Amino acid sequence: MPKRTDMKKRIKKYSSLALFAIAALIVMAFVLNRKTHYTKHSRNGVWKVEYGLPEAFTPLDAAAAKPDNKGLLNLSNAELPIEIGDVEVIHRDGKTYLRFPLERGEQIYGLGLNFKKVNQRETIRDLRMDIYHGRDDGRTHAPVPFFVSSRGYGVLINSARKLEVYCGTTQLLDSPEAPEERDRTTDKDWQAHPYSDCMEILVPSEGVDVYFFSGKDAGEVVQRYNLFCGGGTLPARWGLGFWHRVPLPFTDKQVLGEIDEFQKRGFPISVVGLEPGWQSNSYPCTYDWDKNRFPNPKQFLDELSKRGLKANLWMNGYVSKKSSIYGSLRPFFADHTVWCGGVPDYSMPQVRKIFIDAFKKNHLDLGVGGYKLDENDGNDRWLYPDTTVFPSEISGEQFRQTHAVFMARMINDLYSRENKRTYGLVRGANAGVSSYPFAVYSDYTNHADILTALVNSSFIGILWTPEACNARNADEWSKRIQAVAWSPLAMLNAWSSGKKPWSFAEAADSVKAAFDLRARLVPYLYNAFWRYHKEGVPPVRAMVLEKSFTDLLSDGNAKLSEEYRKLAQDVKDQWMFGDDILVAPMLGGQASRKVLLPKGKWFDFYTGKYAGQAEVVNADFAANGSRIPVYVRDGALVPMLASSDKDCRKLVVRHYGNKSGKLSLYDDDGETLEYKDGKFILLPLSVEVSEDGKKEGKVGAGAKKLFNYDSVEFEFMTK
Amino acid sequence: MPKRTDMKKRIKKYSSLALFAIAALIVMAFVLNRKTHYTKHSRNGVWKVEYGLPEAFTPLDAAAAKPDNKGLLNLSNAELPIEIGDVEVIHRDGKTYLRFPLERGEQIYGLGLNFKKVNQRETIRDLRMDIYHGRDDGRTHAPVPFFVSSRGYGVLINSARKLEVYCGTTQLLDSPEAPEERDRTTDKDWQAHPYSDCMEILVPSEGVDVYFFSGKDAGEVVQRYNLFCGGGTLPARWGLGFWHRVPLPFTDKQVLGEIDEFQKRGFPISVVGLEPGWQSNSYPCTYDWDKNRFPNPKQFLDELSKRGLKANLWMNGYVSKKSSIYGSLRPFFADHTVWCGGVPDYSMPQVRKIFIDAFKKNHLDLGVGGYKLDENDGNDRWLYPDTTVFPSEISGEQFRQTHAVFMARMINDLYSRENKRTYGLVRGANAGVSSYPFAVYSDYTNHADILTALVNSSFIGILWTPEACNARNADEWSKRIQAVAWSPLAMLNAWSSGKKPWSFAEAADSVKAAFDLRARLVPYLYNAFWRYHKEGVPPVRAMVLEKSFTDLLSDGNAKLSEEYRKLAQDVKDQWMFGDDILVAPMLGGQASRKVLLPKGKWFDFYTGKYAGQAEVVNADFAANGSRIPVYVRDGALVPMLASSDKDCRKLVVRHYGNKSGKLSLYDDDGETLEYKDGKFILLPLSVEVSEDGKKEGKVGAGAKKLFNYDSVEFEFMTK
Repeated sequence: MPKRTDMKKRIKKYSSLALFAIAALIVMAFVLNRKTHYTKHSRNGVWKVEYGLPEAFTPLDAAAAKPDNKGLLNLSNAELPIEIGDVEVIHRDGKTYLRFPLERGEQIYGLGLNFKKVNQRETIRDLRMDIYHGRDDGRTHAPVPFFVSSRGYGVLINSARKLEVYCGTTQLLDSPEAPEERDRTTDKDWQAHPYSDCMEILVPSEGVDVYFFSGKDAGEVVQRYNLFCGGGTLPARWGLGFWHRVPLPFTDKQVLGEIDEFQKRGFPISVVGLEPGWQSNSYPCTYDWDKNRFPNPKQFLDELSKRGLKANLWMNGYVSKKSSIYGSLRPFFADHTVWCGGVPDYSMPQVRKIFIDAFKKNHLDLGVGGYKLDENDGNDRWLYPDTTVFPSEISGEQFRQTHAVFMARMINDLYSRENKRTYGLVRGANAGVSSYPFAVYSDYTNHADILTALVNSSFIGILWTPEACNARNADEWSKRIQAVAWSPLAMLNAWSSGKKPWSFAEAADSVKAAFDLRARLVPYLYNAFWRYHKEGVPPVRAMVLEKSFTDLLSDGNAKLSEEYRKLAQDVKDQWMFGDDILVAPMLGGQASRKVLLPKGKWFDFYTGKYAGQAEVVNADFAANGSRIPVYVRDGALVPMLASSDKDCRKLVVRHYGNKSGKLSLYDDDGETLEYKDGKFILLPLSVEVSEDGKKEGKVGAGAKKLFNYDSVEFEFMTK
Repeated sequence: MPKRTDMKKRIKKYSSLALFAIAALIVMAFVLNRKTHYTKHSRNGVWKVEYGLPEAFTPLDAAAAKPDNKGLLNLSNAELPIEIGDVEVIHRDGKTYLRFPLERGEQIYGLGLNFKKVNQRETIRDLRMDIYHGRDDGRTHAPVPFFVSSRGYGVLINSARKLEVYCGTTQLLDSPEAPEERDRTTDKDWQAHPYSDCMEILVPSEGVDVYFFSGKDAGEVVQRYNLFCGGGTLPARWGLGFWHRVPLPFTDKQVLGEIDEFQKRGFPISVVGLEPGWQSNSYPCTYDWDKNRFPNPKQFLDELSKRGLKANLWMNGYVSKKSSIYGSLRPFFADHTVWCGGVPDYSMPQVRKIFIDAFKKNHLDLGVGGYKLDENDGNDRWLYPDTTVFPSEISGEQFRQTHAVFMARMINDLYSRENKRTYGLVRGANAGVSSYPFAVYSDYTNHADILTALVNSSFIGILWTPEACNARNADEWSKRIQAVAWSPLAMLNAWSSGKKPWSFAEAADSVKAAFDLRARLVPYLYNAFWRYHKEGVPPVRAMVLEKSFTDLLSDGNAKLSEEYRKLAQDVKDQWMFGDDILVAPMLGGQASRKVLLPKGKWFDFYTGKYAGQAEVVNADFAANGSRIPVYVRDGALVPMLASSDKDCRKLVVRHYGNKSGKLSLYDDDGETLEYKDGKFILLPLSVEVSEDGKKEGKVGAGAKKLFNYDSVEFEFMTK
């Protein structure tokens, strides 16, 4: 920070500032004088509204996402259920206050990555990038300022500021819905939290861009948001197997030894994650291979490849003086350090180019599959403060909110430019990242909470892994690994606890079954990702994004038990996996659980037996073969590999229930971007059930040579 | 919120805004062009520095405190140990970043009311008004933006914004003290938190007033701050006895019955607190007596008076439609309600006048002694949001930070105008309130933490009560009540738990002893408050504000045990009470504890026996007669009442140790402001110890008729 500056320079600077301010005020006066206080543009069910004077830098700028307009056109032309003019806007104190109406019974989803509840109504969030501290207060790895209303619309506040959100907690003096006062001393109905008919958002800037998304239901709103952000990601197919991470100080030989041990014991893995020790210095990082532990990275990566594995490299964004790129990055450092490392301004293309060039040469070209981008979220005690000055002039506050986005974008660019796909991990995310091949993770490990985070990730355009790090006993270990197997990125991250999949002997079989299952599910899951990419439907979805569930709730004629209605208020412990599978995880110590089955018949995934419909069923872990309950929709086709063997090319298409069904199975090379040029196959598969119950599977015409399969076979699960 | 406004009005408004902005920018350019980036004024050891363009509204405006310049002149003329020019200031992003240098070993105190630690170095605080949630993160009842350095200076950031404070947690790239990077994989000395040589404060406004306070030590810095804020408060003398609060729905008869029960059992109390039920409606409040429970308030208050008690009335600031003042307040309401009640803009003199007029007539004139001002701090889930619009145009953020200050000021004005003193409770505070007769309290009850809050209150110009609400057993109950007896406001607030002082039979005697002791200590404590008023020395002080303690630590020749040095790092569980008494509270379940005795000899308060000097002593609760350890300085005089009887007028002056000592005992009418016109006495008391150890007590000449005492007697505690 220079204390003295040349006076002329200063005068010049402030004169131009003054001129700019005058111009800005004139524009502002004009904007504010418009009857409606805003300008509005709409396209394909997305309305962009500019309130006041929006800021120059936003999360969508950071993500650089381009709407998939073709995809958007395929959605319904649903109107917004609210009038944009009904959103009240106040510009005051240099800030923008937004107020959205709430109806009785309306639920609100999203508002960042939350861990405790699905319905965010009656909560307050200070949305800011941070590690998750165990409280849903808005400090989270993905403070995405996007919400979805159960009425069928969504709103993105395109601000990289820390936002305060009062979601149905406040009362206006003049509201027609204002609750009535009561006397606490004498009235038992006195409430600490009276009814609120609005959501208020404080945006600490003079103005803001707001995007409204319509949808015929909450599910379509999410689709529209994801397509607006470029469509969901289609990650490298190898990323959908099981991942395993090895301890910090491991050498190349130790890594290969560990992998051989997995393969010997029959636990299929497809990605091995190297923690900081692969680098010659870390915390801060060199991004250079450590010459002692990894003397020949190319050879090491080739050995991995022979075993059918990709390497994922841990890194954080803080640069060691010993790094080969320290010198080139030096001019672009912020004025603060983190762990004594330089903080490059990742918002600058020059910075990302330096990384991309070095990473291509030192990692990608040798065969590295991707990265784990750590420590770009928080916490305050470790990271650069909000007072940090960055060369790009993006403020510390805004940089922190989008740091992870810039890093994910950089790695995505690195691979895209080489016509390669990747799949990786990032500890932070914000708006606009649906198309990035990254799953968000945390050091926070409460099992119930990280599963709720998985459910909630589906509202805000991010992927999440409830990675398995540790467990107190065999029961919990087995349940943690089974649950992660039904997530977008199935990872064992137990290097710190020292746990291996087989560490608890009693659980070794069920853990192995989960590993096998995950490997075999790749065709089904890859297909779900294709739908995420093309239609914006997340591969893992909250129950309130599943039509057969919300249809049931909104069906006035449905006879639902009190128990069902009560549990349906906030379904945070079950989810849809792909189109047709419903997963109901269990926690350590839990012997049985209730599961809400939506409309239509549902069948047990493992046995094909009928499980129920539109009802609460009780599932018992032991009776279920020590497996968490998983159900499949009537008539659904579930394409799986015949075995978990890495070379398996035989497809088994399971059919569940008693209805005819069909599926269009996506297949491509799994590794390049050539699918964007049409190099993919949609294989028509169907099962017809005749009147006498006979089932017949058919592989449709038009199936050219498949990429990943040599043969297709049907398996009728329901007898 | 009007959605349409007349265009001409708007143009006019924005034209003048534009003109103002131009003028502002010119001024700003001028200010920023000054070599030093700030303007500076100093007086009596206080430097006011204006950085950039300070805001129109500040906490000191809210408190309306006037410096006691005469008092300030009596302090040393110590210089600041830092150059003001060494404070780095950056204006960016519409905000002001301040950076203060930190030396190795320097400790920082204050930064709001914290509950866990005394030394705030290596912490981060988002200072904002809120209830305390159990974490020292800056959300607290008194987010006073003031810090004291152990180097002997203090700084007040005079901002009513939410401030981010990074107190020794950040590292600058170019700092000469920048720590060296290490490799986490191989270096055991790798640190998650490298050394930091600065404190950074983000003030979210274009500029800010900052006050620097010098002092020959931390203690004098605190004195200077308090005198700058008008000097410490001198509350009504009756407020120094024990307080008791009765249940919500109590009627006048029930209150009197409860008081009679206390008196029958011999538990002296001087104030009875009425909870919400005294009002005809509460949450929101009418401030009107409930006609059923209190049909004749005057008669009831007279009955209290006969028993030697004052009434303290609970209230919060949210107004019921049924209130007699609702109509007059209606034009001054904010646009949000709290518990369905109107939120008057307490920053407006008109609003405070409406309250003062009504309260005078309905409460004060009937004999009410004061108020408990509740719910003016937080939490977010209950209070008006930051998006609230107030008629005064003070922002919601700023109003929330100072709401409690305005309310305390209003009640202080109410009594002052009637030439009366009060003593009350308020749940929030901010800068500038030293002269207000209020103690801050919380619903948070962790015993260790509320005692640390008591220690920390002494840095930031507030008083705090670690009130006794409940306990799990007799041991804890006794220790909670004993500790509160050595605080600025001794209160039992157990109406909710239903506990009475005698609820645990085994503890009844020691609790009664604590009640008796508190009643008898009034002369000593009142004298301590006089010193607070005249010299700014808080009646309860952290050990680091006690010279004999810091002198010992900084004495290079002192032979201090490792144990002493270790414990001295963060003394959060013992404090000075008045000039000469050291209190070492204990927690439920704790059988013994370590106490740090400063330089000079210390004697047991109860027995007068020698306890130690400059050492760690071990104190045993049972062996100490089930009393928490309390020590008195060698030669100290402790003036006490001879008994706890409300009519007792006999003064017993205890002398401890073997040194001669003297004391100037303050006495006045205890109730009016006439002491400001010189209507008080400073009675010279002394004890001379001759060479053969004979002790003689003397009452000095010039003692006119005393206000509160008929006779004086000496008691030599140390044999």
